[in-house]
Amino acid sequence: MCHVCCFSIGVDPDTGKNCTDKVHRYILVVAHHQIFRSRNNVIMAVADIGLIGLAVMGQNLILNMNDHGFVVCAFNRTVEKVDRFLANEAKGTKIVGAHSLKEMVSKLKKPRRVMMLVKAGQAVDSFIDQLVPLLDNGDIIIDGGNSEYTDTRRRCLTLKDKGILYVGSGVSGGEDGARYGPSLMPGGAPEAWPHIKNIFQGICAKADGEPCCDWVGEDGAGHYVKMVHNGIEYGDMQLICEAYHLMKDALGMSPDEMSKVMTEWNKGELDSFLIEISANILKFKDTDGQPLVEKIRDAAGQKGTGKWTAISALDYGVPVTLIGESVFARCLSALQQERVEASKQLKGPASTKYSGNKQEFIESIRQALYASKIVSYAQGFMLLREAAKIFNWTLNYGGIALMWRGGCIIRSVFLGKIKEAFDKNPHITNLILDDFFHQAIDNCQEKWRHTVATAVTLGIPTPCFSTALAFYDGYRSARLPANLIQAQRDYFGAHTYELLENPGKFIHTDWTGHGGTVSSTTYQA
Amino acid sequence: MCHVCCFSIGVDPDTGKNCTDKVHRYILVVAHHQIFRSRNNVIMAVADIGLIGLAVMGQNLILNMNDHGFVVCAFNRTVEKVDRFLANEAKGTKIVGAHSLKEMVSKLKKPRRVMMLVKAGQAVDSFIDQLVPLLDNGDIIIDGGNSEYTDTRRRCLTLKDKGILYVGSGVSGGEDGARYGPSLMPGGAPEAWPHIKNIFQGICAKADGEPCCDWVGEDGAGHYVKMVHNGIEYGDMQLICEAYHLMKDALGMSPDEMSKVMTEWNKGELDSFLIEISANILKFKDTDGQPLVEKIRDAAGQKGTGKWTAISALDYGVPVTLIGESVFARCLSALQQERVEASKQLKGPASTKYSGNKQEFIESIRQALYASKIVSYAQGFMLLREAAKIFNWTLNYGGIALMWRGGCIIRSVFLGKIKEAFDKNPHITNLILDDFFHQAIDNCQEKWRHTVATAVTLGIPTPCFSTALAFYDGYRSARLPANLIQAQRDYFGAHTYELLENPGKFIHTDWTGHGGTVSSTTYQA
Repeated sequence: MCHVCCFSIGVDPDTGKNCTDKVHRYILVVAHHQIFRSRNNVIMAVADIGLIGLAVMGQNLILNMNDHGFVVCAFNRTVEKVDRFLANEAKGTKIVGAHSLKEMVSKLKKPRRVMMLVKAGQAVDSFIDQLVPLLDNGDIIIDGGNSEYTDTRRRCLTLKDKGILYVGSGVSGGEDGARYGPSLMPGGAPEAWPHIKNIFQGICAKADGEPCCDWVGEDGAGHYVKMVHNGIEYGDMQLICEAYHLMKDALGMSPDEMSKVMTEWNKGELDSFLIEISANILKFKDTDGQPLVEKIRDAAGQKGTGKWTAISALDYGVPVTLIGESVFARCLSALQQERVEASKQLKGPASTKYSGNKQEFIESIRQALYASKIVSYAQGFMLLREAAKIFNWTLNYGGIALMWRGGCIIRSVFLGKIKEAFDKNPHITNLILDDFFHQAIDNCQEKWRHTVATAVTLGIPTPCFSTALAFYDGYRSARLPANLIQAQRDYFGAHTYELLENPGKFIHTDWTGHGGTVSSTTYQA
Repeated sequence: MCHVCCFSIGVDPDTGKNCTDKVHRYILVVAHHQIFRSRNNVIMAVADIGLIGLAVMGQNLILNMNDHGFVVCAFNRTVEKVDRFLANEAKGTKIVGAHSLKEMVSKLKKPRRVMMLVKAGQAVDSFIDQLVPLLDNGDIIIDGGNSEYTDTRRRCLTLKDKGILYVGSGVSGGEDGARYGPSLMPGGAPEAWPHIKNIFQGICAKADGEPCCDWVGEDGAGHYVKMVHNGIEYGDMQLICEAYHLMKDALGMSPDEMSKVMTEWNKGELDSFLIEISANILKFKDTDGQPLVEKIRDAAGQKGTGKWTAISALDYGVPVTLIGESVFARCLSALQQERVEASKQLKGPASTKYSGNKQEFIESIRQALYASKIVSYAQGFMLLREAAKIFNWTLNYGGIALMWRGGCIIRSVFLGKIKEAFDKNPHITNLILDDFFHQAIDNCQEKWRHTVATAVTLGIPTPCFSTALAFYDGYRSARLPANLIQAQRDYFGAHTYELLENPGKFIHTDWTGHGGTVSSTTYQA
């Protein structure tokens, strides 16, 4: 028994016997306290990283870090959760807990690394405010929540002035990903990266042996890339829903049948986590033996990163139409009661059933999904490129594809192809122009058109299949009808226009013969 | 001749004769100056309203006010513009000018009314800052530019504290509308309305004898309604472009032929300003006799109110898909050079020509345009209703339709029908459910579907025709596939879901058998 332990229970360390003398016992206890206190300064700093927020993502990330040999100190605002976690999920691990931020910080090795997995918004600012006085120059705060990139930019800047290295990291993969290997997209103060790289690349998913985590870029870049990831996730989910809707309504297929189709799809070009889980969901039975999915309310929420992606696309003028439509599709789904009422009044076409070959139409749907997916990712990377220009980030697009290749919700074989496309040509204008994707769309486009035309004819809404096709047809149009828009704007508002043969020179025509010669400067239609 | 005039030309007012005595003439002139100066304090306040900003909209509004008997004092930051305006366009009118804001304010009757028509943003705040010290309690500042409603809300609040009545007014109609009768959408401090009503309802357009201007609501309501107006304008313009694109590419029609078609359309359900000017534009010839429209660059800008409408729709979760797509269509058009390059590589379908009956397809296109337009306005009014809820505005939807009925860019016979629909039932859930529009869509939907299916098959992008149809089919669906989205989110992120039979109760299923029992609270997909 060591001296400290002896002292603490009143045993004389020299004799090994219980000391019965009251004064001596008192001296022993004082000695214990002194030694314990001096030991605290050295050995209490046991943890490699502190983690705040013990909801599902936080708990699972901690367990994941523990699995990889990192000592984590867990903290939660409602501190009972810490004890519950230590007594249950974390039992038998090296995970330690703290009942205050001060205690947590005191248990961290230097430079201290504190990761937050709390609700985006006010809670993040609040924890930052509480942490800063407890930290030293060069310590690191990581926000692993779904914060807006604009907030991360602001926090990065503010904390830089205070000597704190701030990192905003995308974390994707849901509870399973967090537990067994998420996709991580860290960005912020570059000086932080060497200090967190081992933990991040240790716990993240691996795809083809490579970590699905790399440094993304400065300030808000990590959260921006995560935002676009989530936007693409919205799009992927809606595309699968449209395929499901067509199979269910146009072909009258059962959930079990559709599950089998998706299982097949998951062996080919569409091989992805979301197709895999959709197959599992479709075959999942409720306790009464009925397919659970058909009992679920068809009203999806949308308040987060999908919406932000669409807004960012509008703000920067990038036609990310598929994500936009997928967000709006959720908005429309949310009007569930209103739709039920409207369905009683508004009519569709006489027939909603597909009359052709079932297997062929299933294959058409698959090709429509695949081609639409290519468009969606192309749009997403267009947005990343524009944001990189605006914020002066040097983004590694192939690296981003690799980060998404495994671990995250949109993980797929497909992302490996995107990685290859950027490896071949890092400066490619648009993914659609890459030989592989170009060819893939060529192979699909006939059936893609057939699927959309059929859906339109049968009255089954496929907003994302449709918008992807409209984008493709627009993008490959040397001439779009926007010349008429320019003429209209000049006609009614003297906004001027350019001639094809003289771009950059804006001229005004007096279309009616009674307009003035004053060009518009105040009015912006 | 009055004393002042006599003095000014050196006539003795008592004798009526020219005075030849030098000293006496001097005395007369001094007397004139003194009288003039003392009169200034009374009679210099001659103007009913001051107007800042002499770009095309400002100039034309001033001339319009002058026509209706209001005395306007004109001011412009670059003051030379004031002199030029007075010497040219305003020559022979009662319009007065000012070379400083102070001078302008001194010429205004009380309560003073100052209207700004300057570039939205910083310029508005700057003029407000300069005006406030010159104004008294109860004076009125009106912003007639395209300001963001959030800015107008803020300014309203700030100026209320300073005793100034602030009004943000939508002004639509382009240069012609401003000159001969715009649509005006004023909102802000309600106490201002009685003082500006005569001017506003005097100069605005009239439709069926009623003014296209009424009080919209508190704080930012006027600018919000104007924003949605502009969003709808974006949609209308894109819808016409899609019709033009189909006629040009699928039917190979010439601009003159298309002009004739639009002239016909303008006599029926589509009767509207934008169809009318499109017909005029299509037949307009350049100096070489060629159609000018075909020489115009097909790259439209988008930085203003259309974008804000789409963002607002995303923010408030209203599926305003058509305006969203119309904004993105402009974004895509703007990538003109990139499209030209892509067109050399990316292939479409073998045939882009319509093989059926030409006249029938023209009619199909018209019906697609009309049905899509109904959806677009229905979506716009959905957004207004949601914003009214959020900001606690009491909007008069029929009144808004009437404001848009004449004067503004989207003016049309159609808006009269919307007015009627709200007159019949002010609380109608959705315009599509109104008998008239319900029937109109029923009449069109077969050809609408045919048009979209044809466009999809021929490879001609019609993003707005398509999204409108997808919305219609979604809105009339009692069941959408969003149940699968809810299941997916619960599967990968423990986000919980509702059962159809028990809405409002959120439950979690362990879909894989190895998930935890912890619900997600930090992660918002």
